Amino acid sequence: MSLDRILNPQSVAIVGASKNPTKRGYQAIKTLLEEGYEGKIYPVNPKEKSILNLPCYPKVSAIPEPVDLALIVTPAKVIPSILDDCGKKGVAGAVIIAAGFKESGEEGKRLEAEVVEAAKRNNVRIIGPNTSGIMNLTIGLNLVGIKNAPKGEIAFLSQSGNLALELIVEASIKSNKGFSYYIGLGNQADIKFHEYLKYLKTDPKTKGIVMYVEGLKDGRKFLQEAYKTTLVKPIVLLKSGRTETGKKSVGSHTGSLAGMSEVAFTAFRRAGIVVVEDSDKLFPSIETLSYLPPVKNNKVAILADGGGHATIAADILTEAGIEIPELSERTQQLLREILPKNASVRNPVDVAGGTDERPELFADCAKIILKDPNIGGLLLVGLFGGYAIRFAEILRFQEEDAAHQMGKMVKKYKKPIVCHSLYAFMKPHSLELLRYYNIPVYDSLEVACECMKNLCFYGKYLKSYHREVSFVLNYRKKAVLEGEEIIQNALKEGRKWLLEPEAKRLISLHRVPVPKEIVAKTPEEAIKFAKSIGKKVALKIVSPDIIHKSDAGGVKLNLEGEDEIRKAFNEIIENAKNYKKDADIRGILVTPMVEKDLEVIVGTKIDDQFGPIIMFGLGGIFVELIKDVSFRVLPISRSAAKEMINEIKSAKLLNGFRGGKKYDKNAIIRLLLSVSEIIEAYPEIKEMDLNPVIVHENGKGVDVVDARIRIDYSGE
Amino acid sequence: MSLDRILNPQSVAIVGASKNPTKRGYQAIKTLLEEGYEGKIYPVNPKEKSILNLPCYPKVSAIPEPVDLALIVTPAKVIPSILDDCGKKGVAGAVIIAAGFKESGEEGKRLEAEVVEAAKRNNVRIIGPNTSGIMNLTIGLNLVGIKNAPKGEIAFLSQSGNLALELIVEASIKSNKGFSYYIGLGNQADIKFHEYLKYLKTDPKTKGIVMYVEGLKDGRKFLQEAYKTTLVKPIVLLKSGRTETGKKSVGSHTGSLAGMSEVAFTAFRRAGIVVVEDSDKLFPSIETLSYLPPVKNNKVAILADGGGHATIAADILTEAGIEIPELSERTQQLLREILPKNASVRNPVDVAGGTDERPELFADCAKIILKDPNIGGLLLVGLFGGYAIRFAEILRFQEEDAAHQMGKMVKKYKKPIVCHSLYAFMKPHSLELLRYYNIPVYDSLEVACECMKNLCFYGKYLKSYHREVSFVLNYRKKAVLEGEEIIQNALKEGRKWLLEPEAKRLISLHRVPVPKEIVAKTPEEAIKFAKSIGKKVALKIVSPDIIHKSDAGGVKLNLEGEDEIRKAFNEIIENAKNYKKDADIRGILVTPMVEKDLEVIVGTKIDDQFGPIIMFGLGGIFVELIKDVSFRVLPISRSAAKEMINEIKSAKLLNGFRGGKKYDKNAIIRLLLSVSEIIEAYPEIKEMDLNPVIVHENGKGVDVVDARIRIDYSGE
Repeated sequence: MSLDRILNPQSVAIVGASKNPTKRGYQAIKTLLEEGYEGKIYPVNPKEKSILNLPCYPKVSAIPEPVDLALIVTPAKVIPSILDDCGKKGVAGAVIIAAGFKESGEEGKRLEAEVVEAAKRNNVRIIGPNTSGIMNLTIGLNLVGIKNAPKGEIAFLSQSGNLALELIVEASIKSNKGFSYYIGLGNQADIKFHEYLKYLKTDPKTKGIVMYVEGLKDGRKFLQEAYKTTLVKPIVLLKSGRTETGKKSVGSHTGSLAGMSEVAFTAFRRAGIVVVEDSDKLFPSIETLSYLPPVKNNKVAILADGGGHATIAADILTEAGIEIPELSERTQQLLREILPKNASVRNPVDVAGGTDERPELFADCAKIILKDPNIGGLLLVGLFGGYAIRFAEILRFQEEDAAHQMGKMVKKYKKPIVCHSLYAFMKPHSLELLRYYNIPVYDSLEVACECMKNLCFYGKYLKSYHREVSFVLNYRKKAVLEGEEIIQNALKEGRKWLLEPEAKRLISLHRVPVPKEIVAKTPEEAIKFAKSIGKKVALKIVSPDIIHKSDAGGVKLNLEGEDEIRKAFNEIIENAKNYKKDADIRGILVTPMVEKDLEVIVGTKIDDQFGPIIMFGLGGIFVELIKDVSFRVLPISRSAAKEMINEIKSAKLLNGFRGGKKYDKNAIIRLLLSVSEIIEAYPEIKEMDLNPVIVHENGKGVDVVDARIRIDYSGE
Repeated sequence: MSLDRILNPQSVAIVGASKNPTKRGYQAIKTLLEEGYEGKIYPVNPKEKSILNLPCYPKVSAIPEPVDLALIVTPAKVIPSILDDCGKKGVAGAVIIAAGFKESGEEGKRLEAEVVEAAKRNNVRIIGPNTSGIMNLTIGLNLVGIKNAPKGEIAFLSQSGNLALELIVEASIKSNKGFSYYIGLGNQADIKFHEYLKYLKTDPKTKGIVMYVEGLKDGRKFLQEAYKTTLVKPIVLLKSGRTETGKKSVGSHTGSLAGMSEVAFTAFRRAGIVVVEDSDKLFPSIETLSYLPPVKNNKVAILADGGGHATIAADILTEAGIEIPELSERTQQLLREILPKNASVRNPVDVAGGTDERPELFADCAKIILKDPNIGGLLLVGLFGGYAIRFAEILRFQEEDAAHQMGKMVKKYKKPIVCHSLYAFMKPHSLELLRYYNIPVYDSLEVACECMKNLCFYGKYLKSYHREVSFVLNYRKKAVLEGEEIIQNALKEGRKWLLEPEAKRLISLHRVPVPKEIVAKTPEEAIKFAKSIGKKVALKIVSPDIIHKSDAGGVKLNLEGEDEIRKAFNEIIENAKNYKKDADIRGILVTPMVEKDLEVIVGTKIDDQFGPIIMFGLGGIFVELIKDVSFRVLPISRSAAKEMINEIKSAKLLNGFRGGKKYDKNAIIRLLLSVSEIIEAYPEIKEMDLNPVIVHENGKGVDVVDARIRIDYSGE
């Protein structure tokens, strides 16, 4: 069901309406009247005849006309019965303001479940509970009570009412843009982030979406919607609850399950979402992305009228991985022709006083720079807008002329200009003009840099879009019959773990290279097999009762010759029986010793918020000591597999470090893709651990030495 | 010489004074008059009789009264002759505005040298050149031309005029504090950062110092002055030129040598300087540190009226290493008594609507929290100051009452409160009151968190002050006669490197453990020695002509028995002669093979800005692959040595990682301290490389297997 009736309602019932001006049930009606809500307003209160000159109804079902949305401002306990009444009336959705639900402990949790149950049986969708409300400023629907929110084309989803206030203030004083919707998600008991996203994706009144997220209820669906949305409009996200203290704080006020999981950041970026870390940067980022063309080549020029700002901006952008390339010789020549002798023209460009009496020069410089085909965007930093204030009043006309010119340039060259100005706070006309042309102006250099950085990220993302994956898991699509049987067989036996030979067989069905090995029932079988392969072997117990084989004395390595193998075989059997008297022993795995070489680890698990994820890292100290690992939400594409390998710090070791071996990266990529395929094929797999995987020289592949797979009924 | 006559001048000559209102030589005089400069103003221009009603003089030496300071606004070329004239008059200092010096290339460099030369011979100190000017707002001395700079007690040293403008704007609109001095350092051709610091340290009009630094000319003296200054007043520093692009940008506009060196950040912190990375945070940081007591125990409470802000603040502070401890049971109980049922009282404290009708509760909560002995400071975040605006006008009196109470609490409990308010931009009276009590108020949550973070850092620093070192090198103090001889002997021979046995002998004089070894002239000597120690040995060529011994085939390892040793000995001699026909061979070093174990590296070099520095890291891939090293400016204290070891990522390996060995950290500490002592003792040492150093099990010490020392005449 679309959320259209809920977010664009033609009528609203205020349940818990009041005549008392200090009550929300009064303020809500007053705000709707003052803001000129275009639809109908129905106060509901059994004790009143009329409120603010509107007829009042005893209950929702008593309203004679259709009702799209109910704002419920009553205490928590009576809400289920109100929802029953709403259901009778065919109300599409209810905004529940009350707190005291999941976020407040066990009793609240029960009550929340009751409310969700009532909503379901009445076919009423819930916003909240514990929400600050919603606004649709395009029709004057303001159920939050924050006044003077600027109207515009940015939709705002938030789990904090204070953040809403903050962004509204910021938009009002530092921008000429505003909001189409504000939606306070509250506890997300029913409607979740991804459903709002889906609605906003095609909403013609919304150009960009900004969100403050404390916890996601269904991270994978969120990623799927975001992935589709960012192709048509930008999303900027501030995620809190990164640290343990932050997570605790989240838990205590929105009842969200979790904070930032290890994979969230990468996953968001892969879905094209711009992630910011400071609330200061939230509104500027979405403003910039919604109204300016992105930077297509990650290359930016800085135009400054003072070295300090140029240097700081260059530092910030460079640290963010953005190139500040030297301008072409021709571009430099053109700049030299119009700037003073001591100007810097390489990039950053410093006009060195050249604009003090001629601020129109900024437009000339901007034009020369944007025409340079190697430059994808321009950051203007310093005093622009303040020349009339700082130097001579008459310069304002030149500044205004320059603003007009630069404004049009953005359109003409399809390259963004972002402006930092020390004089933004004084709101000179030239800066208002820049904003009119959608060039944002910030008084903070860091904010301006962040915006440019985000334009670069988004441009890069849109270019590489085809390489990404859609976060959809095609369960069973590539399953192999024998693989299904291995898993079903184990589940039937009540096992949570595949036996090592089963796990290895399963992955080999998906082209993962495992050693040629057998399960021997007798020492003789083991000896015979060892002879046949002509290598030292390892023996490992095969028993559903022994998960930690080494701890049980169930592993012997580096065995050679009849005697050694027989002795080891018998010892293992004995150890196993000592470990567990009636252990179900299926035999002993005889597997060739793989030559020592670089070890890597590949693992998967089910993340609370995002479902199946994959981890890669170099074995031993790299994983354990310095946590040098990379994560992705599954499934992954070839390019994501490549990135996973290259983004770990120790990746250089694979490339022939210090004249050492070059290792077979392609084989690792194939392995990661196979693992991705396996997890998609068998939703019963909850955890996989390939450790160690030996990587050989380039062209010689990998060997999975040990494989552990945990399974459970799929619950697809 | 004190800078007092220069920074507190009783008279100023304006050289290059003008009647043309668009010229600096006019504006400077006008500004001095308008700002009510308390001293005398002497325009200097041979073509005018009077300017702005002040008598004009043909040259400085023609002024009848004494002149303390000259502001020179003429073009660059005539400046040396002006300085000669200033010298005649006994002028103490000259502010040189003109650009076109070192920053602009070879010709400018020559001109700058000429200016410095002229200044020296005339005993005139130079501020600049290429400076935006100076201000001493305590006496109305404004030689910059920025109007309406707020007066106060913060001194500002900057290498960027635009940054000055930015800070002045920020102070004006977001604070009630202001500046005592502004000093534009320009090219620092003469007076450098550390001299201004020295002056400001004892200046009674200055409570705190803030600086924007692009490059230091004498980093060690700077550290020494800063170290002494931060004990009495705080210093906040923004350092730019961190990245390659940033460094280039610096070079092109202030002619500074270098950007941020690897050690700068740690060195600044050891000197007690608060380093910030965003210009947005520069003024708030110094404001906070100058007027509030620091946090003594790194433990902070957050008081919020909304979960979102509390969570974000908790994340930021936790990531910065600050503790947000759970409040004591008693404190929680007291809070529960006054807050609504669904409030969070653990920390962060969320009043959960409890203040909506009673904002005075903030003061009650603050008092309860600050009385908790485990809490060192309070961060107040959210809407405070805006209750009268958002809820009901009448609440303003409660807010004002709360402000008075909180203001006095800071004094009483000697614990800081920092306030974030969404309503700061509206300047409600309650927030003005907080500022009156020196509680800063910011509209940016990130800025408020940064300030709290800096209060924690400064508190910690002041507590640990006795552990720090003063950055003073006591050259030769602990030199040993034999060590001096080794170095002098090598220098006499024209060598830049000590021979390995010399280097090892030298360090052993300072208690660095090196293997017992000899230099053998014949195979027989080598064999005899090897027998006597009963271990496998390594042979290494000893020749001043062969620095890279391995490349020349001059090293053989793992030798045992007569035949092997003799063969290796002869081969090395032969290889050496092949490498260089007439190589000066002093013999062959015979040294026992040290058992393999954990390898570390200790190195020293001379940093451009700070002089001798020391580096520590784990050997092999850790240093080379992931650059896991720590640096300190020398000399180091015991605690600094300890920190150096603990701050590398791979430090866990030393502590018995995964049930492995515990290594002898104390021996590493002793080694680092010995190296520190050696570098102090012999200023001729320009570089030292102990690599590898084998670390043994706890209690068993270290072995320096190879030592390289580069020397040169000291130039002390």
